[in-house]
Amino acid sequence: MKMELEQLLPGEIERRSFEIITEELGERTFPKEQEDIIKRVIHTTADFEYADTMTFSKDAVSSALSALKDRGRTMIVMDTNMTRSGIHRASLEKLGIEAVCYMADPDVAREAKEQGMTRAAVSMNKAARTAEETGKRVIFSVGNAPTALIAIEELIREGRVHPALVIGVPVGFVNVVQAKERIMTADVPYIVAKGRKGGSTVAAAILNALLYKIDTER
Amino acid sequence: MKMELEQLLPGEIERRSFEIITEELGERTFPKEQEDIIKRVIHTTADFEYADTMTFSKDAVSSALSALKDRGRTMIVMDTNMTRSGIHRASLEKLGIEAVCYMADPDVAREAKEQGMTRAAVSMNKAARTAEETGKRVIFSVGNAPTALIAIEELIREGRVHPALVIGVPVGFVNVVQAKERIMTADVPYIVAKGRKGGSTVAAAILNALLYKIDTER
Repeated sequence: MKMELEQLLPGEIERRSFEIITEELGERTFPKEQEDIIKRVIHTTADFEYADTMTFSKDAVSSALSALKDRGRTMIVMDTNMTRSGIHRASLEKLGIEAVCYMADPDVAREAKEQGMTRAAVSMNKAARTAEETGKRVIFSVGNAPTALIAIEELIREGRVHPALVIGVPVGFVNVVQAKERIMTADVPYIVAKGRKGGSTVAAAILNALLYKIDTER
Repeated sequence: MKMELEQLLPGEIERRSFEIITEELGERTFPKEQEDIIKRVIHTTADFEYADTMTFSKDAVSSALSALKDRGRTMIVMDTNMTRSGIHRASLEKLGIEAVCYMADPDVAREAKEQGMTRAAVSMNKAARTAEETGKRVIFSVGNAPTALIAIEELIREGRVHPALVIGVPVGFVNVVQAKERIMTADVPYIVAKGRKGGSTVAAAILNALLYKIDTER
């Protein structure tokens, strides 16, 4: 049993974790702009399967960074309050980015009931309307509800929203694989974890990795 | 490519997901009181590895349920606000359970800096003090910081806190495995996911599974 603790200062633990991840990835390489995102997802999950499943559209990272740097003009729309709690708040504030999750809003619950839709789908419709009304650019982050991802794909096809990025990492057993395959055929920048795995922490890790890229550039 | 969506009502998706999990677990069986907890963790992660790593002390579930049913006398102390966002709020309210996370409290940040400790460790000390002052029973939930789990283990050994349950599912590469092994040698009811994996969503899944047990009993 390995009971001895490594004696590291709090700030050193993350650096050491990334060293271990790099060691264990061995000779595996990734496109430069994707590498820190993939490693941060592995850091968040301790699951190296993401090295195989993380899939980026060609323009995903550049499109996301351009939106995130467009001060005060971009909103991040999430499908869970867990992801919202997990994003690095100071970075958002510094960049003037609004981060919203409409899932628990009473009007969303009411409309979902009336229309026989999921709250996730109604939330995404509300986000598309808000973006249109305010002229804001949108980054969608889906870490839980495949129905949210399906709704976003429909909104894109109907030309009702033009996201700067869709993060598609819902987790689960029903319609999750399909929803991810669908978003990857839409005309939109995407970051997707193929297969069943994903989650709110994975979505937050991807968003944080993008935000940290901007911090590092400065 | 599997693009066809299964046509299910929102309420049916969870039931169908659990059916798939049960099918894929095959002849694998679990102690009755653990089964729904393990399956909910798999549901949350789409990761069957948890069927092997989830480890329960003999009295874990009964001790947790007894505390959760002790109306108004139990607090759940978490190491992330993500887990707090992920717990089923209506169940907590119905049971009169206080759910707290001290990680972002200014006094915790200040004390951590003064003492050269992690905020996680300071948070757990604060929880132990609060429990003593208020006479509340405590369930600890650690989904992120191994230092929180190590601090809890020390508080238990020093007799400063007597938790009704410790959920030990931090995730990561440094001191995570060791922290889990340590808590399993302490004299306390525990639910641990051995190894590196875990996370805020896993902690929330375990807490929700416990809360749903009480809902189902009624």
